[in-house]
Amino acid sequence: MSRIEQDMRDITEVVNRRLDALLDETCEPGILMDAMSYSLKAGGKRLRPVLCMLSAAMFGEMHKALDVACAIEMIHTYSLIHDDLPSMDNDVLRRGKPTNHVVFGEAFALLAGDGLLNCAFEVLLNYAQKNRENKLDVISAMHIIVSASGTRGMIAGQSADLEFEGKDVDAQVLHYIHERKTAAMIKASVIAGAALFYANEADMKALCLYGDNLGLVFQIVDDILDETGDEKKLGKSTGKDKDAEKMTFSRVYGIRASQRIAKEKTDEAICALERFGKRANGLRTLADFMLERDK
Amino acid sequence: MSRIEQDMRDITEVVNRRLDALLDETCEPGILMDAMSYSLKAGGKRLRPVLCMLSAAMFGEMHKALDVACAIEMIHTYSLIHDDLPSMDNDVLRRGKPTNHVVFGEAFALLAGDGLLNCAFEVLLNYAQKNRENKLDVISAMHIIVSASGTRGMIAGQSADLEFEGKDVDAQVLHYIHERKTAAMIKASVIAGAALFYANEADMKALCLYGDNLGLVFQIVDDILDETGDEKKLGKSTGKDKDAEKMTFSRVYGIRASQRIAKEKTDEAICALERFGKRANGLRTLADFMLERDK
Repeated sequence: MSRIEQDMRDITEVVNRRLDALLDETCEPGILMDAMSYSLKAGGKRLRPVLCMLSAAMFGEMHKALDVACAIEMIHTYSLIHDDLPSMDNDVLRRGKPTNHVVFGEAFALLAGDGLLNCAFEVLLNYAQKNRENKLDVISAMHIIVSASGTRGMIAGQSADLEFEGKDVDAQVLHYIHERKTAAMIKASVIAGAALFYANEADMKALCLYGDNLGLVFQIVDDILDETGDEKKLGKSTGKDKDAEKMTFSRVYGIRASQRIAKEKTDEAICALERFGKRANGLRTLADFMLERDK
Repeated sequence: MSRIEQDMRDITEVVNRRLDALLDETCEPGILMDAMSYSLKAGGKRLRPVLCMLSAAMFGEMHKALDVACAIEMIHTYSLIHDDLPSMDNDVLRRGKPTNHVVFGEAFALLAGDGLLNCAFEVLLNYAQKNRENKLDVISAMHIIVSASGTRGMIAGQSADLEFEGKDVDAQVLHYIHERKTAAMIKASVIAGAALFYANEADMKALCLYGDNLGLVFQIVDDILDETGDEKKLGKSTGKDKDAEKMTFSRVYGIRASQRIAKEKTDEAICALERFGKRANGLRTLADFMLERDK
């Protein structure tokens, strides 16, 4: 196991434990909590929390970003639950398990998604309440996350994705959709971790550039894996985008060119980290890891 | 038109204008924004914003609570859109108009709901950013709202409502459901307006008692109107609760006893306002108004 894989595993364990505790704090036992917990615990790469924690570690104590990282994962999980619903992508497999609505029914899946989004804000607000004396800039971190997950960010991307399904669109629309649908929250994970510790403008700018490129790479690789990946390894159905005539990088550019673009963007992401020297080793290796991933 | 009706109308106009502006600030033009705007503009009593503004007026300048009031209305509207979905209550009429999913389809209705919940937080956070110097306690107001709308509040109530549909339940379960599903956000509207201006503990306690009772009255009257009300006046389908074998006050206690309880609770609500003298005239009259409402 590589160093970054070990780091990711360590962070993931801490995040998983904290997610459990946070769910206990914000929910009452019952079907709703079971449904929320089911998707939250279904695994996944925990990429966004890892990004947030690695970025935070460059500016302060990593563990102080834990609740922010968990809130981001809650938002990501809610978006997956709602995305999988029959009225949306109608997916039955996610992270190698039956999707939320398959197990709990549509109504509880809907509420579990709503619940996780609301919970994320509760977690962030509780943390903001505890940090009233400006030791940490929780408000700025929240602002970054909520903008990225919102109606100019992730939700706008999902909406555009629906709107253009089956339509012949160009590269510009493709970028519009993916910048919002996936890249926005990936970028937010990186910069929220830094904003929490009052990172300066130049550092934030560099991390924005890293996040923009990384977000794009993530989506391109996702598109490629949807066509060429192993369903078992990925833990989700493949070929769905093609079936639904969704806009993907591999559809617009072809697999080869998509791989080339992904490599270029990874280089650009890593280049943006230059000013941080060795402190950014984690983020640097993570970018390479994301390019090479097969799940 | 009574004084309170005129006040409500004035506040409603201000709220409606601000909701328009806030939507422009937080959304990009397109179907998603249209769907959000459709339900937000469909009218309704704007009871929660009015409560928030009237309560705020007792402790500071009413207009300073405007964004908080609008965020509450966004959360209320999102909950209606999701509640009306086919997998939930499957309602086709709301506020006298076809429901969101009837007009925009299920997928966009889902996203419009998600979008409004996220927007509410964006609006509150923008306001918190502007009030960093603690002139207003936006963080506390947010905390009250997000707890009430969350998985120990409104979402827990909706979940329990689903869970017990068609089952024979007692008064205790009925209260559990309604305290969370409806009363929590009504109470939060009242106390968030006061918390914004750092209202003291004794004042907050009195307003909590008012809010608890008012929330209950609102739900009881809602249940009665679902059985006896005029569909045209109400702007929504009636008799739905009975058809779905939902737990309602009129089903557990009968119409007569429900009316008696509603009157008692209104008196208790008004009684809780005693310490505020004339300052609470608005909230006092509103309680009476809510008891007598026929829509």
